[in-house]
Formats: sequence, structure tokens, C-alpha cells
Amino acid sequence: MSFTQELAAHTQELRQQIHAMPFNRALANGSLSPEIFQGYIIQDAHYLEGFARALSLAASKAPEAQSIAQLAGSAAGAIAVERELHAHYMGLFGVTSDDFEGTDVSAACDHYVSFLLRSAAIGDFPEAVTALLPCFWIYRDIGKEIAQTSRADNPYSAWIATYSGEAFDQSVQRMLDLVNRVADDASDATRARMHHAFQRSCWHEWRFWDSAYHREGWKQPRPEDVVTG
Amino acid sequence: MSFTQELAAHTQELRQQIHAMPFNRALANGSLSPEIFQGYIIQDAHYLEGFARALSLAASKAPEAQSIAQLAGSAAGAIAVERELHAHYMGLFGVTSDDFEGTDVSAACDHYVSFLLRSAAIGDFPEAVTALLPCFWIYRDIGKEIAQTSRADNPYSAWIATYSGEAFDQSVQRMLDLVNRVADDASDATRARMHHAFQRSCWHEWRFWDSAYHREGWKQPRPEDVVTG
Amino acid sequence: MSFTQELAAHTQELRQQIHAMPFNRALANGSLSPEIFQGYIIQDAHYLEGFARALSLAASKAPEAQSIAQLAGSAAGAIAVERELHAHYMGLFGVTSDDFEGTDVSAACDHYVSFLLRSAAIGDFPEAVTALLPCFWIYRDIGKEIAQTSRADNPYSAWIATYSGEAFDQSVQRMLDLVNRVADDASDATRARMHHAFQRSCWHEWRFWDSAYHREGWKQPRPEDVVTG
Amino acid sequence: MSFTQELAAHTQELRQQIHAMPFNRALANGSLSPEIFQGYIIQDAHYLEGFARALSLAASKAPEAQSIAQLAGSAAGAIAVERELHAHYMGLFGVTSDDFEGTDVSAACDHYVSFLLRSAAIGDFPEAVTALLPCFWIYRDIGKEIAQTSRADNPYSAWIATYSGEAFDQSVQRMLDLVNRVADDASDATRARMHHAFQRSCWHEWRFWDSAYHREGWKQPRPEDVVTG
Repeated sequence: MSFTQELAAHTQELRQQIHAMPFNRALANGSLSPEIFQGYIIQDAHYLEGFARALSLAASKAPEAQSIAQLAGSAAGAIAVERELHAHYMGLFGVTSDDFEGTDVSAACDHYVSFLLRSAAIGDFPEAVTALLPCFWIYRDIGKEIAQTSRADNPYSAWIATYSGEAFDQSVQRMLDLVNRVADDASDATRARMHHAFQRSCWHEWRFWDSAYHREGWKQPRPEDVVTG
Repeated sequence: MSFTQELAAHTQELRQQIHAMPFNRALANGSLSPEIFQGYIIQDAHYLEGFARALSLAASKAPEAQSIAQLAGSAAGAIAVERELHAHYMGLFGVTSDDFEGTDVSAACDHYVSFLLRSAAIGDFPEAVTALLPCFWIYRDIGKEIAQTSRADNPYSAWIATYSGEAFDQSVQRMLDLVNRVADDASDATRARMHHAFQRSCWHEWRFWDSAYHREGWKQPRPEDVVTG
Repeated sequence: MSFTQELAAHTQELRQQIHAMPFNRALANGSLSPEIFQGYIIQDAHYLEGFARALSLAASKAPEAQSIAQLAGSAAGAIAVERELHAHYMGLFGVTSDDFEGTDVSAACDHYVSFLLRSAAIGDFPEAVTALLPCFWIYRDIGKEIAQTSRADNPYSAWIATYSGEAFDQSVQRMLDLVNRVADDASDATRARMHHAFQRSCWHEWRFWDSAYHREGWKQPRPEDVVTG
Repeated sequence: MSFTQELAAHTQELRQQIHAMPFNRALANGSLSPEIFQGYIIQDAHYLEGFARALSLAASKAPEAQSIAQLAGSAAGAIAVERELHAHYMGLFGVTSDDFEGTDVSAACDHYVSFLLRSAAIGDFPEAVTALLPCFWIYRDIGKEIAQTSRADNPYSAWIATYSGEAFDQSVQRMLDLVNRVADDASDATRARMHHAFQRSCWHEWRFWDSAYHREGWKQPRPEDVVTG
């Protein structure tokens, strides 16, 4: 069993829950409300910027030139995807740049980005790169699964085409290969940290979608949380 | 008005809500349940380790030698405080090292630490140091406020003494001075990022205490979050 | 006068000395010894790996998405250029992969890479990006100058074509624009640090070529540096 | 044989050459010229600031709380030592703050600092901490060796007392223990990188002293390095 197969086995339940989320089911059959998708795509833009930063930071620590190029290339690619998808959906839904600029990052998105950047900043390379894997892997698996059943007139077909497509698949495969190579040389302690980072990022993936579906922002103190008098 | 007075003015409501939280009211009159305090002190230990990392990372970028020494000294001091308070309360409440090691970091604590480390890693020095300020400043203000009313037999008097004490007060004053010095030389864009970082850390302070009071761990998918069939 | 014009004015003498170095004059007329060029191209490969790391690290701190993509793209591009030029010259001169792997980085190359990584790690973004500018700018200017006089049968024409070409020119122009944009928002203190970083990297450029021309490795203690008896 | 004994064995010749340098022999018998010592102590101040930054950056990545405190404590301690020794020698030799501020860092000092910061920034923790070891270890060994023969009226007795003293000895021993602990858990590839980082820092130690003895600044192009006409 490869190391990434081990990672998959240890997170099977959570990853299945992500596939089964109402957001993804509604995306698949095209019934997802445009308001929810708009909110999601704005958060995704915030996310992809942070994701690109974390990929770049990890690239700076890669063990050899090929991996620097791969991770830096994925960083540049994440920004490019973000722009294309945005231009498409902002046009489709009539979202303006001002709508986008005026929408604050959600707590779930911000926590995920902070986790990735922290892993890349103070974790070693194996930890950094494994924290970055779920976003590649889960998006591809969701994209491919949805693509099998989605109809041509699905308003979200551009999103589905991006994440089920050949170009993204190749970048995911290179990440899987990189994590497996790194794991081969890693001590047991390092592998344990890789498992932990992977599990945490899978949790953040779930929270990202869950939060987008419920259009959550930042939790605020409720009156009952404050003692008065 | 100094820059730190501006920071205080912009976050007044949230900081007052932190003072008024049931956790802090119950800590003040000694009625806080030992279970909640134990959970809190374990999360605080997780937090102080991350806080010390973020202080160290910020120290590496400080503009001159004095600030490096200040921030690195605070990092070493945070670990020392953590050990003393822990040894004290683990003895008082019969918490073993195994209890501690076996208790996972909470989501609220982990998100806060990730935010601080991200700010120190990819933010510039003014942003990094302003993100670190609320933990100093709010703890001192809570400590001093509680110390005014707390009775000598309060089981949490060691905690109160630490955060209302002279040594901590001096380290807080040095942080306030440092942030004011840095703000004096900062452009408007940098000051805007400093305000943002301060506000976010204040929010994380609130979440940390709120989460400890409600003994929250990591949110999990509920049955209604999953589409079956 | 734009900020990059100021940078150019302050380093005019040193940059002219680089243009006038025997290495570059001999490269231009094709008389550079293959042994010196081989040594240079191996050091250049070591350099480009470190340069790509520093570009990636700077990308992680960029103020907005476009600059992340630009710098990460340049990082991936630096590795691609290194591979193409290497494959070409290793074939041309019969240098094997083993020759390459077996050649240690020179002190001049290592010091330059360390300086870039240090600037990107503990400097703020304006400092990081200005330290990275001379390698772009000086190579383009040398490349273009040499291209004007070099004959078609120059054995170094592939090198000359790379650095005098359109694709490289565009990436240099984007770096100049980025540094100018960043300088527009920078305080005087930040601009002073940008000048300093630029001057240091120009010095390292000179040392890199000077060291390659004289085939220097790592200075070692001489007998007269040691007191015996 | 412990890992640090291995490190010592692999660098025996270079470390002996450092002990035998004229700078250290003249320091031991008090004959070192005040001009050379002044130049050295100014560079040492530049160095200790960078050393403290690198210690702080390494602290942020330490595997557990105790090592964070140790490294951050050493960072704060390095700044404290710098100030004490400086105040002492600036008074003794009549060096003013302006003399100090007006003296640029030497190339040898700057390259060493850049190497340490690069190791701490993109290396993993074992590499970072091993790069930092020579400055502790070599200074202690030089300090103790000199202390055995130095007379009470040696003008450099404050320097000698600092580096041969108990407090410094304890911090060195903690670094040796830390490197040995880290090496115990490290893979062979990691240990190879640790050896490499140690060897490089020993070389920079030699260059630092050699450069201070010869009062070197930054090498500049000579007339014969420039092709004119």
C-alpha cells in the first residue's frame, strides 16, 4: 500500500462525508442556488490566493529543483484557474468586482489558509506538502464523480470541467507522486506528522464546503455569552 | 491618540464582551468549575507553545537588536509561564502528564495559533507584532480587573497573580511601546493591515475563551449535513 | 525618475564593470574557453535552483494575487531555463550528469543564494523583490548588449539567445514594474533598504562572474594563516 | 560515538586551524592590536544580531516547547552578551556609538549571517540547529583554551571570561545535547545535511576570524578585472 493510499484509508469516512454533502449533491444535479455558489466562488478566490502562497512557501523548501518547479507552477496555476473561473461566473451571475472585493473572507476559509501557511512556515517539507494534498485530491475526486452524472446544461459545468479535466488530473497525480516519494525517505515520526497534517486539511475541506453551504461568516458573541449587570 | 489607543478604540465592543464572558466572571469569583478550568489550562499550554513560535518567528524579522531580544525573551518567557502554571494546576487538580498529552488541541486554539504563525510568516513585521499584541494586552487587562475583586481563597489565584503581576505588566508595556514605534514609521496601508491583524487576534481571543467555556473540540459533520441514498 | 532608474543610477559604476568583465567580453566574441564556460554553467545551475527558491519565498509574501503568480511563474521558469540550457551545453561540451552532480557549488554562488534567501526570509516584500531584481535586469542588459555584436557561429549563442530574447525581456519588464509599484507605496526607510538590497545583489552578480572566470572554489587557510609551534 | 563527536571528527583539521590562527594566538597572549580587536568586536556585534535572528527562526520550528525556550533564550542571550561586551570594549578603547554605526558589516560576516538565516529559513530543524552549533562550540573551545594560558592583565580578559565561563558553557552543552537528540531521530539523508551545514558554518567561522585579522571589507573589481577599450 502506497503512503497516499494509507492517507486515504485513514480519512475514508470524512472524505465520504464531503462527497455526500448537500453542496456537492446539488452542484452535481445543477440545483445549487446561485446565491450559495456565488458565495462559494468568492471564498474560493480568497482560498486560492492563500493556497498559492502556501504552495510557494513549500516550493522554497523542496528537496530538489524538479519539486520547486512543480510547486511554484501549481501556485501560478492556482491563480490562473481562479481568474478564469471567476471571470466566467462573475459574468454568468452578474457579480461585479466590487461585490467580490467587498466580501470578507469567511472564518472557515481563513482558518484553512492559516493552517496551510503555518504548516508550510514551521513544518518541514513533508508536512507542508501533505497539508497541501487534500485540496488537489478531493477536488479531483469530487470533480470526476460529479462529471459522471452531471448534465450538459448544468450551470456549474465550467467548474466541473476544470476539476474533472486532464490538466488538473496531471497536477494532482504529480502531487500524489511527490508525497509518496517524500514519505519513502521519511522517518516514522515524520510520517505521523504527515498523517496528522493530511487529516487536518481534510477537516478544513469539509468545513470550507459546509460553511459555504450555510453561508457562514465569523461567529459573534450572542447575548447569552455575555454576563451583564 | 497613540496607535495602540486607536487599536483599542476600534475593538472596544469585542474586548468588553471578552471581559463580560461567563468564563471570566466565574474565574473572578472563584466559581468556575474545575473541569472547565482544567480544559482551559490544557488548551492554554497548547496555545503558549504556538504563541512562543510566533514570537520567535517575529523576532527573526525585527528591525533592530533590541526588539529581537524583547520578542525572543517573551517567547522563552511564555514557555516558562506555561510550565509554572501547569505544574501548579496539574498538582492542584490531580491532572497527570498523560491527561495533558492525551488531550488534543481544540479547533479554536489551533485556528488562533495558525493565524499568529501565518501573520508572522507572510506578514511584514508591523503586522506580525500587532497580531501578537492582544494576547499580551487582553490578558493583562483581564488579570488586573479580576485581581481587584478576587478573594485570597480563589482557587485560580495563581493564574490571576501571573497575569495581574508586575513582570507580565512590563512585558505588555514593552509590546505596546514596540507597536507604537513601528506604527510611527508605517505607511497608511501598513497601518490598515495592523488594524486588521489586531481585530482578528481579538476575535480569536474571544473564541479561545468561549470555546474553553463550552468545552468545544472540533466540529464534526452531523447526520443532516450528509445526503444519503 | 522612476525608482528603478534611481537604483540604476546608484549602481552605475559597478554595473558597467560587470559589462566590461573579461568573461562577458570573451562570451561576446566567442573566445571564452569552454572550460570556463562549463564551470560557469554548472554554477549557474546551482544558482538558478536557489534563485527559484528565493522567488518562491518572495511569492508567498506578495501583496496581491497577480504578484504571487508572477513570482511563482518566474521560479518555475528559472528551473525550466536551467534545464534547457544545461541539456544543450552538457550535450555540446560532453559534460555528463555525473560531472555536474560531482561539482560543488562555489563560494561566490553560495553566498549570493544565501543572501537572496535571507532577504526573502527576514526582509519584507519590497526588500525581497528588489534583491531579486539584478539577476533579471543585468542578465537582460548583458544578453542584449552581447547579441548586438555576437556572430551566428558563437558557441554561446544559445545562452545569448535566452537572455536577449523576448520571453526573458517580458519577465524582466514585469519585475521592473513590480519594484516600481512597490516603491511607490514604500516609506523612505523601506526605500533605503531596497537600495541596499539592490546594491548588494549587484555586488554578488559581479562576484559570481568574477569567481567563475577565475574558477574559484572555497578559500582555504594558507600555511601563513596558521601559527605553529 | 555521539553525533556531535562525529561532527567534530569530520572537521578536525579546520577547527585546529581556527585555534592556530594568529588572531587567536595574539588574543591569548594579549598582543593583538587594539585596531584589529576593535574591528573584530564591531563585526561581532553585526554577527550576533544575525545569529540571534537565526536562533529565533530556528526556535519557531523546534519540535517541542523546551527547545523553543532554549533557542529563543539563546537569541535573547546573544543580544545581551553583545551589549555587555560592547559597552565594555567601546569604553576601554574609546569607540563611540557613531564609530560603530558607521562601520559597515564585512563581507565575511554578512555571508556567514546569510548562510545561517538561509539554513534556518529553508532547511529543516536538524539542519538549522546544526548550522548554529559551531559558533557556540568553537567559541567555547577557543575561550577555554585561551583562558588556560592568558594572564590577568590581558586587555581581552572580559572577552575571554565570557566565552570560557560557566553560563556560556551551559548554553553550549544544551546545544550539543539538542543536536544529538535531533540526530538520533534523523534519517541518513538528514544526517548528511547536518554534516554539510556544520562543515559550512565551521568554514564561515574561519573566514570570520581571518577576515577580521586582515581587516577585509568587500572585495572590489581591480583594474585588471575590467576590459577597456
